[in-house]
Amino acid sequence: MRASEHDLERPKRRALELRDRYAAVRAATLALCEPLAPEDYVLQSMPECSPVKWHLAHTTWFFEVFVLRELDPDYACPRGYERLFNSYYEALGARISRDARGLLSRPTIDEIRVYRARVDDAVCALLSRAEPPRADLLARVELGLAHEEQHQELLLTDLLHAFSKNPIEPIYRAAPEALSRACSVVHEEPRGEAHRWCDEPGGVLRVGRTGDGLAFDNEGPLHRAFVEPFSLRSERVTCAEYIEFIRDGGYREPRLWLADGYAFITSRAIEAPEYWTREGESFSRFTLYGRLPVDPHAPVTHLSYYEADAFARWVQARLPSEVEWEVSARRASHAGQHVEDGLFVCSRASVNETMGGAWTWTSSAYSAYPGFVAQAGALGEYNGKFMSGQMVLRGSSCFTPRAHARVTYRNFFAPHTRFQVSSLRLARSVSRAS
Amino acid sequence: MRASEHDLERPKRRALELRDRYAAVRAATLALCEPLAPEDYVLQSMPECSPVKWHLAHTTWFFEVFVLRELDPDYACPRGYERLFNSYYEALGARISRDARGLLSRPTIDEIRVYRARVDDAVCALLSRAEPPRADLLARVELGLAHEEQHQELLLTDLLHAFSKNPIEPIYRAAPEALSRACSVVHEEPRGEAHRWCDEPGGVLRVGRTGDGLAFDNEGPLHRAFVEPFSLRSERVTCAEYIEFIRDGGYREPRLWLADGYAFITSRAIEAPEYWTREGESFSRFTLYGRLPVDPHAPVTHLSYYEADAFARWVQARLPSEVEWEVSARRASHAGQHVEDGLFVCSRASVNETMGGAWTWTSSAYSAYPGFVAQAGALGEYNGKFMSGQMVLRGSSCFTPRAHARVTYRNFFAPHTRFQVSSLRLARSVSRAS
Amino acid sequence: MRASEHDLERPKRRALELRDRYAAVRAATLALCEPLAPEDYVLQSMPECSPVKWHLAHTTWFFEVFVLRELDPDYACPRGYERLFNSYYEALGARISRDARGLLSRPTIDEIRVYRARVDDAVCALLSRAEPPRADLLARVELGLAHEEQHQELLLTDLLHAFSKNPIEPIYRAAPEALSRACSVVHEEPRGEAHRWCDEPGGVLRVGRTGDGLAFDNEGPLHRAFVEPFSLRSERVTCAEYIEFIRDGGYREPRLWLADGYAFITSRAIEAPEYWTREGESFSRFTLYGRLPVDPHAPVTHLSYYEADAFARWVQARLPSEVEWEVSARRASHAGQHVEDGLFVCSRASVNETMGGAWTWTSSAYSAYPGFVAQAGALGEYNGKFMSGQMVLRGSSCFTPRAHARVTYRNFFAPHTRFQVSSLRLARSVSRAS
Amino acid sequence: MRASEHDLERPKRRALELRDRYAAVRAATLALCEPLAPEDYVLQSMPECSPVKWHLAHTTWFFEVFVLRELDPDYACPRGYERLFNSYYEALGARISRDARGLLSRPTIDEIRVYRARVDDAVCALLSRAEPPRADLLARVELGLAHEEQHQELLLTDLLHAFSKNPIEPIYRAAPEALSRACSVVHEEPRGEAHRWCDEPGGVLRVGRTGDGLAFDNEGPLHRAFVEPFSLRSERVTCAEYIEFIRDGGYREPRLWLADGYAFITSRAIEAPEYWTREGESFSRFTLYGRLPVDPHAPVTHLSYYEADAFARWVQARLPSEVEWEVSARRASHAGQHVEDGLFVCSRASVNETMGGAWTWTSSAYSAYPGFVAQAGALGEYNGKFMSGQMVLRGSSCFTPRAHARVTYRNFFAPHTRFQVSSLRLARSVSRAS
Repeated sequence: MRASEHDLERPKRRALELRDRYAAVRAATLALCEPLAPEDYVLQSMPECSPVKWHLAHTTWFFEVFVLRELDPDYACPRGYERLFNSYYEALGARISRDARGLLSRPTIDEIRVYRARVDDAVCALLSRAEPPRADLLARVELGLAHEEQHQELLLTDLLHAFSKNPIEPIYRAAPEALSRACSVVHEEPRGEAHRWCDEPGGVLRVGRTGDGLAFDNEGPLHRAFVEPFSLRSERVTCAEYIEFIRDGGYREPRLWLADGYAFITSRAIEAPEYWTREGESFSRFTLYGRLPVDPHAPVTHLSYYEADAFARWVQARLPSEVEWEVSARRASHAGQHVEDGLFVCSRASVNETMGGAWTWTSSAYSAYPGFVAQAGALGEYNGKFMSGQMVLRGSSCFTPRAHARVTYRNFFAPHTRFQVSSLRLARSVSRAS
Repeated sequence: MRASEHDLERPKRRALELRDRYAAVRAATLALCEPLAPEDYVLQSMPECSPVKWHLAHTTWFFEVFVLRELDPDYACPRGYERLFNSYYEALGARISRDARGLLSRPTIDEIRVYRARVDDAVCALLSRAEPPRADLLARVELGLAHEEQHQELLLTDLLHAFSKNPIEPIYRAAPEALSRACSVVHEEPRGEAHRWCDEPGGVLRVGRTGDGLAFDNEGPLHRAFVEPFSLRSERVTCAEYIEFIRDGGYREPRLWLADGYAFITSRAIEAPEYWTREGESFSRFTLYGRLPVDPHAPVTHLSYYEADAFARWVQARLPSEVEWEVSARRASHAGQHVEDGLFVCSRASVNETMGGAWTWTSSAYSAYPGFVAQAGALGEYNGKFMSGQMVLRGSSCFTPRAHARVTYRNFFAPHTRFQVSSLRLARSVSRAS
Repeated sequence: MRASEHDLERPKRRALELRDRYAAVRAATLALCEPLAPEDYVLQSMPECSPVKWHLAHTTWFFEVFVLRELDPDYACPRGYERLFNSYYEALGARISRDARGLLSRPTIDEIRVYRARVDDAVCALLSRAEPPRADLLARVELGLAHEEQHQELLLTDLLHAFSKNPIEPIYRAAPEALSRACSVVHEEPRGEAHRWCDEPGGVLRVGRTGDGLAFDNEGPLHRAFVEPFSLRSERVTCAEYIEFIRDGGYREPRLWLADGYAFITSRAIEAPEYWTREGESFSRFTLYGRLPVDPHAPVTHLSYYEADAFARWVQARLPSEVEWEVSARRASHAGQHVEDGLFVCSRASVNETMGGAWTWTSSAYSAYPGFVAQAGALGEYNGKFMSGQMVLRGSSCFTPRAHARVTYRNFFAPHTRFQVSSLRLARSVSRAS
Repeated sequence: MRASEHDLERPKRRALELRDRYAAVRAATLALCEPLAPEDYVLQSMPECSPVKWHLAHTTWFFEVFVLRELDPDYACPRGYERLFNSYYEALGARISRDARGLLSRPTIDEIRVYRARVDDAVCALLSRAEPPRADLLARVELGLAHEEQHQELLLTDLLHAFSKNPIEPIYRAAPEALSRACSVVHEEPRGEAHRWCDEPGGVLRVGRTGDGLAFDNEGPLHRAFVEPFSLRSERVTCAEYIEFIRDGGYREPRLWLADGYAFITSRAIEAPEYWTREGESFSRFTLYGRLPVDPHAPVTHLSYYEADAFARWVQARLPSEVEWEVSARRASHAGQHVEDGLFVCSRASVNETMGGAWTWTSSAYSAYPGFVAQAGALGEYNGKFMSGQMVLRGSSCFTPRAHARVTYRNFFAPHTRFQVSSLRLARSVSRAS
């Protein structure tokens, strides 16, 4: 923001601030794509993942539909883009099926960069007008930026998944030297240290968005919940601990698993977290840096909910509910590892952090908070309609933009999902004093 | 129980009482089979359903494995029965896959009756011993009876589903005349009467089993939960109301549906509850009495969770959570329609009842109560391992034995399930006084 | 036929002869069912198989539709039977899907016996009339009997398949003592004897039905084909030889297999013929007599075309074409093992027989003979519409009625089919004299 | 070939000629790619199709494995390429599954061009050596070029299929003006002209490769076959005729179809050839030129075998067998439309041509000729292992290189295949003079 703009009246100033943030967020998306070849933008390795190119176009389409066309109903998308880049908004008409996104070589990445630039110009012009746009339109720009940040993360998780399917194991970026050093200790035994458990008294607690700053609709309304006393382990479960679970036959003991989970791992012959490969007694994993040894001191990641749940049962613990997590996370430091740190794996430093590094599976099925009402119009489809069949993850990950992370954030995925940077923390119920 | 037994000491008396109840419950199962031909016992119309014969054998196997063999480890099942009639207990070894239960013509129904009689003799002898069995064994007999009652209900739901697949529409029993009279009003308009809504203040409430009488492990432990103020409609949603929803295009309006639900109904071309057939403007339904007109004043039943949820959204309401339901059900009369009433459809009298008639979908995903710990041993698999991907239903149905119904009971099925006698009630959140 | 009927004029006599044959064939079908319990009649273990009950009803329906209704268009099927028991005749209206035949407990087997008796009475009355029916109607009765004989065989193959899915291994009949003796030599080595190969000169040959007696439409017209000189091994491939193939790793060597075949066996983990079980070094097989050891001297049976083809390649031979088979079969003895012999496995005596014992896979895809024209009307669907995706089998099997076997008969199944009593013979091309 | 090379001895000259042809064929492949963006090279729209990039690499891998490594067993493929670009040769080790070829963004198209150039240099150096390579190696280079030509055609069919899945309908090349003119007559009625039928006497005929020039192994050996007299229609079936079939309800009349075919079209809601779209009464089709009106005078193309067979039955004709086709094609002009003509749709000029324009479905299942023996080694997998489940197509198409077309060529695809440029000709059996 240029100095001369500081003395503008508030709405105008807010618009200009948003314009600057808009430019920064949109540039950050493209920066993530720097190492890619044109061919990389096209890959779709499963229906749950989208091509990088599609992420770039869909986030642009979002501003076009919810901001530019709101202002000017005649604002025209390039031919066919509405159908190609609408994700799931039934209110906005026909769209290609989700699993066909990888069949689009055109528009090319160059054409999509032109598309982004054109929309960027229009949005920035709008935000720079002498007469600033109405507050609800500004709110939609803000939502669009949160949406873009979500897709920055997905762009990386989806790219990792796609690259993992290629036997020549493409490398997104060269691994930093520090990381290689970290990995040299891979055969070390798990540290026998006692774990720290943090007791929480529970009671009637306030949960959900508090009103300051942007939050998604599913984070509200603020409401009360009763929580029995519980205890949360401070450290996340490490790769070393998880390797113990594997070696103890955890994947072959049905009594540790939910019925759906056991059916899932046996039907797919799963014996380790996603991206892990076992060679004799040691484990390596595929990352955006290519293949690396597993760091025993780093949090285990890329687990399904089923695996997290089974591990917890194996150690006579359980996963925290999302309310338990939120309550305990409020007092935690939030200075964890995020995408701006430029490290594309969850590092061992994240073991003791609550936010950043990797998402945390909770035991809570994703559902509406008491009093939740979806927004009117197409934007009401943003979150609410996915409230079945999914589990809540809390926190944020090494792929999440820092500005996008917040304690009330509710991420959600189907319980078999393994391509996200997911980790696990342990909780225990505490007997009430009689 | 014979009079002379009254003055026995308490453990002995409890064993004898249990023996009598055992005989009654087991006989009730067979009584449900009276109208069946041998061929009817074999049908399995989908993996979620089991043949009647399998229900008869599996409940018997349960007593054999958890009671008789507990007492005498050498107690021998007939050859192969362990593998055929184990449902899902991983701890008890190999078993045929669930969807292969319909491939068993042998043992024949006559052989299974012999099997039942043999086990009945052994269990009754055990309960009649001079020295009564230990308390934990008695508890297992009680659990076995609850288990048998569950399967009495499933036997009927599964038979209904299997018969529904036969174009000649077999009839389980002849429809009572009263029912035919009820049906004569089928084209009548829904009564315009105002509905009664019952406000509940909410607060910190105690939820779950209270310790008196048998309850499944998933009903405990008793714990506290906070509930915001809410309101529950007294009447269940009727067929007449549901027909309005259909006529208004409810099944074609994606904005009313959860994403999974809309994918479900469109991929299967579902346009009405299970068993309903539309002929022009009127609807009929297949029942254990064969085809009957839909009674507009009866509760709508055989809905998936998705349909219940979409209907609620259509009337700007929502489904109650299981805690909300339980709290409000405590004060309700429990004299609803159960299987002993001998009426094999949910009648219009059930509209105002909370218990009986039909189960009620809640908005709660099936999960562990705070502090829940599964039983040790194979019986720990009874409920806990299904705690993912399912929704809770509360109450009981016209197919449920009355003794099996209780306010804390947690039934659970996948959200697409339609073959159960499920219904819906409406809830609304209430703004708190400022 | 009663003596007094001999001096009737020819059409009348033919009708009465047919009446007697009708009674005999229909009775033979029921005789095959004698050992069955009512539950056995309902089983459908895969879409390609039908319940015994369905076979009994469908063959009856055939006479009803193609004979009785032809004579009297108002002749009425019992309600719904047309839809239940039409197999695949598109010209005859809606029908239940093939894989839903196992969902029919009703009509019960008792009701179907009544149905059969009613139709039998009508057909016999028709054939006994003073004025005998027209020749085309008699031809249809004859076709109906051939059709019934086909289903006698299928009834047994389908029952075997269904029983094989039951871990308690039901027994259709007690094994004859002779068979048990035959089996005592199971560990014997294959006889090292040289095989007999029979050279055939080839040339332009006449192939197909010759006009005497009933033949299906697909056996004609009689036409010419040129065959290069070839040689056919006299003995069928035995179980002992096939075991050598298995032990040599035949199932794990992709170069022996057609691409489709290798995909088939690997995706289903097939390592031996259908119904075989390997226990260490010995093999047993499930039969209508229950589990028996494999007889090394008997022809190997229950192979897919893919397995037959791979075995042939392993011994540097090939399967015969159907023309080669037919040409060489003309001179062979036809006194092989058929269903009337009452032996329900292919015996070692069949090794040197061309007809009977087991069908022989040929290398010929099932297609129309030059000049083939399907019959007009619904009966045109009998054979012609299956002329894609199937391979021809020739001969007949131990489950085939003797009267149904003939040298020009073309049986056909998809190449992965293993539930039929199929065997293999070896052929080789012979270099022409220069 | 440079002039000075003409007086070399024969083996040397043959090597140099081959070197020149090698350069020309390899360049022709790249020339087909000129209009493509990098993203276009990655698409795989179904398992039967491969990405353009994969075609470019696989054909190169073929020379590497079968020529360069044959000469020098230590010749090294770039890391991982053996696994990525082996199509189906079991003898050559592990490979990625066929349907995962579209998941490879790397190697990039630039890397693959480098790969091609490196192999081209090695092969050309080999062919330019003072001492020319042995004859069997030259034969493998020749086979490699035939293989490359096959993939030139597949590259185009696969690209067309991939582009057809993109709603914005990408255009490979701009449509020539002549083509647009041809299309202006699209609503014209089919010409009522009588068709020309050409009678063939049949008899014992020689079929298959004659020994001059390259032919695939499946075209031999030369052998005798007997053919009954038949008649072949000179003109292929046109779009106008096919539209009549559609309008007459051909796709809704089961009696016209093979059972598998009717199941295929109904389960996929097929109502016209692949790539056709119906708008009211007129039809357009997607081509490499984008969307064009259907030319009524052009041969109908992109049909499955099932559709071709049903059409033939509709006009009381049948498809020719491959022997009938071959016999009649010998006398035909072969100057049809091939890829060098630069027209990327089958033109109306092809209606009267036997070769070029579009392949012709025959009624023959793909199987071995009498006396066929597959080559030893991995190359034995080239053709033989696909001899089940496929039908033979004869001729060549507008996408086939002219040098690749020959009368004995046997193309083969599964009967449901529609992405090939397939067309149909009609045959009839002729009654033999008595």
